[in-house]
Amino acid sequence: DLAVVAVPPAHTAAVLATALRDGVARGYLDVASVKGGPRRELEELGLDLTPYIGTHPMAGKERSGPLAATADLFEGRPWVLTPTRDTDTEVLNLALELVALCRAVPVVMDADAHDRAVALVSHTPQLISSMVAARLEEADETAVRLCGQGIRDVTRIAASDPRMWVEILSANPGPVADVLAGVAADLEETVTALRGLDSADARKRSAGTHAIEDVLRRGNAGRVRV
Amino acid sequence: DLAVVAVPPAHTAAVLATALRDGVARGYLDVASVKGGPRRELEELGLDLTPYIGTHPMAGKERSGPLAATADLFEGRPWVLTPTRDTDTEVLNLALELVALCRAVPVVMDADAHDRAVALVSHTPQLISSMVAARLEEADETAVRLCGQGIRDVTRIAASDPRMWVEILSANPGPVADVLAGVAADLEETVTALRGLDSADARKRSAGTHAIEDVLRRGNAGRVRV
Repeated sequence: DLAVVAVPPAHTAAVLATALRDGVARGYLDVASVKGGPRRELEELGLDLTPYIGTHPMAGKERSGPLAATADLFEGRPWVLTPTRDTDTEVLNLALELVALCRAVPVVMDADAHDRAVALVSHTPQLISSMVAARLEEADETAVRLCGQGIRDVTRIAASDPRMWVEILSANPGPVADVLAGVAADLEETVTALRGLDSADARKRSAGTHAIEDVLRRGNAGRVRV
Repeated sequence: DLAVVAVPPAHTAAVLATALRDGVARGYLDVASVKGGPRRELEELGLDLTPYIGTHPMAGKERSGPLAATADLFEGRPWVLTPTRDTDTEVLNLALELVALCRAVPVVMDADAHDRAVALVSHTPQLISSMVAARLEEADETAVRLCGQGIRDVTRIAASDPRMWVEILSANPGPVADVLAGVAADLEETVTALRGLDSADARKRSAGTHAIEDVLRRGNAGRVRV
């Protein structure tokens, strides 16, 4: 009844197009982690997309492959659905049935809003985690011995598969660059603030203290929403 | 026998100086999270520092205060000791006994090397975690619903007390700024790489892919050391 396409984002539209043309099922869904690009590719092919619905199960681990599989992988996790006004209600219901069978929580979203959201809550944290972990590559052994649970948590997802993440990030570069640019602005301001704390100028030290406290307080405010 | 000074880094030297002058104990140690600055302040006061040893127990949580206390807080955690050639062996042994009683693992280091190490493994991850969490402050409710374990782990320590961290960072601004500047360079390169992936120019896309893969691979290499 339902064809599930689970291939990297760059191949999603082509595989779906073949399946749609061959009419292998009543409904078609993909589980790619980026939704806007594949949809636009399909639209450009001029296919009837009423039997198609884009989806994204928000579950996964820093390890992939069959050995990382667990029966409760999707339990209680959001599973995004990106129907359009053209999507068949029957197909939406087939997708909702699959989501319910996996005990995930369906969340209906616009495809581009989904891509901006995952840039914020998934793709940016992945890159930032990798950048913090990358600082440890050349670190002294004694410094590494001091690593505690804080840096372990911040860098856990830095163990993820680079090839898989290059595929994901390549399919969503604009929204990720926009979020990272915001982090970069905060980072630049924080480096300036820290240099100010090292200064002999009392005004620079005071401005530095305020800027550091501001980023820490905004971090508190964001964290309570997670 | 042993006076333990547990006050913020900016007050550590003054409190120690008073205790040393009053001769309240045989040995004196502090547990401040920054070691170079307090030592230099004490040296400038011209006191006899043979009965003093700087230390830093590397344990803690994103919550502080009596309600966050646990009996096994220090168990198996590194406890840095920063003796100099002038430190009394008797005082070093008193400190080692305290560390053993708390079931922590003693690590002897130079004070400035300690400060550079914690800038890398503790202070930088704290600020970066806050910056990622800060992006969520203004996010749509639907985007926040998509948060998974990855961003939860990356932002866990963003819940930490800003006032405590302003104290810590103010005592170690130079080394933290140096590490953050390295992250900022990677970040800038990554934003350029992502913009390249969005480009019509095949060379820019290829360079973008390589730069993204590079930061992810360096993240893998650093992460295995934690």
